[in-house]
Amino acid sequence: MKTYEPVRGMRDFLPEDLIKRRKVEEEARRLFRLYGYEEIETPLVESSALLSAKAGDEIRHRMYEFKDLGGRKIALRPEMTASVARIVANRLRSEPKPIRLGYIANCFRYDNPQMGRYREFWQAGYELFGSSKPEADAEILTVCHDLLQRLGLNFSIKLGHVGILRGILAIQKIDESNQNTLLGLLDRGQTRTALKIMRELKVEKDCIDTIKRLQALKGTDTETVFAKGEEEVRLNNVATSALENLRKIVALVSEAGAKCPINVDLGFTRGLDYYTGMIFELNVPQIKVALGGGGRYDRLVSIFGGEPTPAVGCSPGIDRIVLAMEKMELFKTSTDTKDMFLVVPVTEAQSALSMEVASRLRQDNLPVRLEVLGRNVREALSYASQLGFAGAILLGPREAANCTATLRDLKSKTQIEVPSHEIVKEARNILASNS
Amino acid sequence: MKTYEPVRGMRDFLPEDLIKRRKVEEEARRLFRLYGYEEIETPLVESSALLSAKAGDEIRHRMYEFKDLGGRKIALRPEMTASVARIVANRLRSEPKPIRLGYIANCFRYDNPQMGRYREFWQAGYELFGSSKPEADAEILTVCHDLLQRLGLNFSIKLGHVGILRGILAIQKIDESNQNTLLGLLDRGQTRTALKIMRELKVEKDCIDTIKRLQALKGTDTETVFAKGEEEVRLNNVATSALENLRKIVALVSEAGAKCPINVDLGFTRGLDYYTGMIFELNVPQIKVALGGGGRYDRLVSIFGGEPTPAVGCSPGIDRIVLAMEKMELFKTSTDTKDMFLVVPVTEAQSALSMEVASRLRQDNLPVRLEVLGRNVREALSYASQLGFAGAILLGPREAANCTATLRDLKSKTQIEVPSHEIVKEARNILASNS
Repeated sequence: MKTYEPVRGMRDFLPEDLIKRRKVEEEARRLFRLYGYEEIETPLVESSALLSAKAGDEIRHRMYEFKDLGGRKIALRPEMTASVARIVANRLRSEPKPIRLGYIANCFRYDNPQMGRYREFWQAGYELFGSSKPEADAEILTVCHDLLQRLGLNFSIKLGHVGILRGILAIQKIDESNQNTLLGLLDRGQTRTALKIMRELKVEKDCIDTIKRLQALKGTDTETVFAKGEEEVRLNNVATSALENLRKIVALVSEAGAKCPINVDLGFTRGLDYYTGMIFELNVPQIKVALGGGGRYDRLVSIFGGEPTPAVGCSPGIDRIVLAMEKMELFKTSTDTKDMFLVVPVTEAQSALSMEVASRLRQDNLPVRLEVLGRNVREALSYASQLGFAGAILLGPREAANCTATLRDLKSKTQIEVPSHEIVKEARNILASNS
Repeated sequence: MKTYEPVRGMRDFLPEDLIKRRKVEEEARRLFRLYGYEEIETPLVESSALLSAKAGDEIRHRMYEFKDLGGRKIALRPEMTASVARIVANRLRSEPKPIRLGYIANCFRYDNPQMGRYREFWQAGYELFGSSKPEADAEILTVCHDLLQRLGLNFSIKLGHVGILRGILAIQKIDESNQNTLLGLLDRGQTRTALKIMRELKVEKDCIDTIKRLQALKGTDTETVFAKGEEEVRLNNVATSALENLRKIVALVSEAGAKCPINVDLGFTRGLDYYTGMIFELNVPQIKVALGGGGRYDRLVSIFGGEPTPAVGCSPGIDRIVLAMEKMELFKTSTDTKDMFLVVPVTEAQSALSMEVASRLRQDNLPVRLEVLGRNVREALSYASQLGFAGAILLGPREAANCTATLRDLKSKTQIEVPSHEIVKEARNILASNS
């Protein structure tokens, strides 16, 4: 006999697992509503060309890529931003700006499975199109802040700006493709390789030293970090205006009442090629990997054939948020059977009657399970008590003949026989007395 | 400039599309709760071996199948029953029966895209494990009935039993694999090919004639259909008890108060090899393809290495339900901006204050969009009116200095200046006066 397991790196969500994910998703959706982000959904499968256009090497090499039966090169999305930008470039081309879009989606990366890193994982997302102003960046940071705060997490935001390092590299005539490679290496902590390539590309020693010093400029004392950073890049216009932009964003988020530490990191990079401005990650002490992140990507919509459209967004990782909440014991264990009734036909002759009674309770929005194993009353009641049901409704030959039902309160272990038309009312009484 | 489209057969769900799907999903989830089905989620990607074990040729040849980077033969699930049965066979092996599981999941089949047939499609599902009694079959039919009825559809149930034709073929020594081929052909309407193969397999002419006559036995006058059917199969024990089982199921569903026509069809087959008993489809006059279906599959759990576990389930197709509801104009068009406020900083100096005020409203569960384009008050108000917002909150230098805010009711076009600590209360007043 062959047994089957989930494919390596993939997970089953049993009811007790899924309840946790749903709780996070529900809060993410509540914020769609409260911030005015309209939910969309895009296909899980997209053309490889779209997904790899600006994904960055790190992600590109870990995609689930294959051909469909029509020979099309397709892949399972490794993230959602490309798909959302595609929609804005095409179908929402002429919508009035700003456009705020939200999503909750599963994504796939062939990563090494480990704590917080899964091959199929869920992301919420908030993407804001049409504004290049720091207010938009600040809104994206705030929505992440609110999500994690509402869920009860203690977190910090790590904040940087790709314009700082790109500005320095650009002035050294390093083209965008090489910039991407270098930022990718720095993102993965391969600083030594990055420095070696910079020397090969003839980046001046002064600049390399500046980059090294910028990488050390980080911390929650943001004014000091900004002051030192400005000193470092003062001859570079691009890097200076990047810093100025970042300073405004931090000021907005702080003054608007953010309650978490903001950790500015001037050497910070992320593994996606499409970022053009502010970038950030959300961190908690409980787990090593970031809970999520995001940034500004002003060129992606036009790269995909749309009007030039500034954009900024984020994707909180739902699995990692669940993980952090589990470690902080933020999930209440509650049985969802505490308002459930079991309807029991005493003999097979009351089967249809039992279904009919169950149906009436459900029409009144009372949850009901039907006894479908043919167990006798004693066994059925023991099952219902064990699972913490509120009550049981027994229908036997006497009840059928008299147009009544016997309602048993499984908490007080009392029972009454009531006329058929009062079952719903009496069931509600049992719930009321138990609540 | 390259533009990108969704891959052929795949769809984007824009906000107005997704609202419809979510409405159906919400009702499906409400029934999980009311019937006591616990929601689970399984990986989108499963081993090809699992998915093709009992899928039937029709589906097997249309799977999105490929190798992952580790060389594993995997596929995107074409349906959910195999995955759910896998979980019951393994992780839920020792759970007390009955086990009721629900899901809402996207599935993939490389079908020819057409009305109601998509390569990525969504299914709800209700699977009941552990009961071989007709009460379980009847419950599955009832949950489908309730779902479609609650959504406002007029539908009929087409009902059959694979035991009838299998019983006849088995007595002619047709092995299971050939039975599957024949039932598959009949399911696809290729009756002539099926009859030809039967002759090749030396099925007796009498039996072929019986099968032909059974195929004509159908209709909502179920008593007549059953009586004629029993006459046809009276010498075949398997077929006779299949008919008897089906008769009980129909009686239960009808007596329990089903409000839709039940169309019994004794020649009915479905394109999945795993069915062992009752099978059914849900039909509406508005579209040609079935809205969903299901049946009994008593052997699947043991085929996947679990304890022998009787099972019955269904999978209403969410996309097709949406399509039918659209054709019946059952979706109310309602703007979800009617309780939305726009918070407008009059000059850039009030940006942080505006974010702070927006945040306070959201903490009180009022939906708020922030003006992030830097538009002036007139433009911002015109945008908010156009989108049907309830009101706007203006924060300028005067308001900042006086710790006030100007609240504008966009319906009555009146405005008042209120102290900062009364913004939430006054915003609620505007909503109350408009509702």
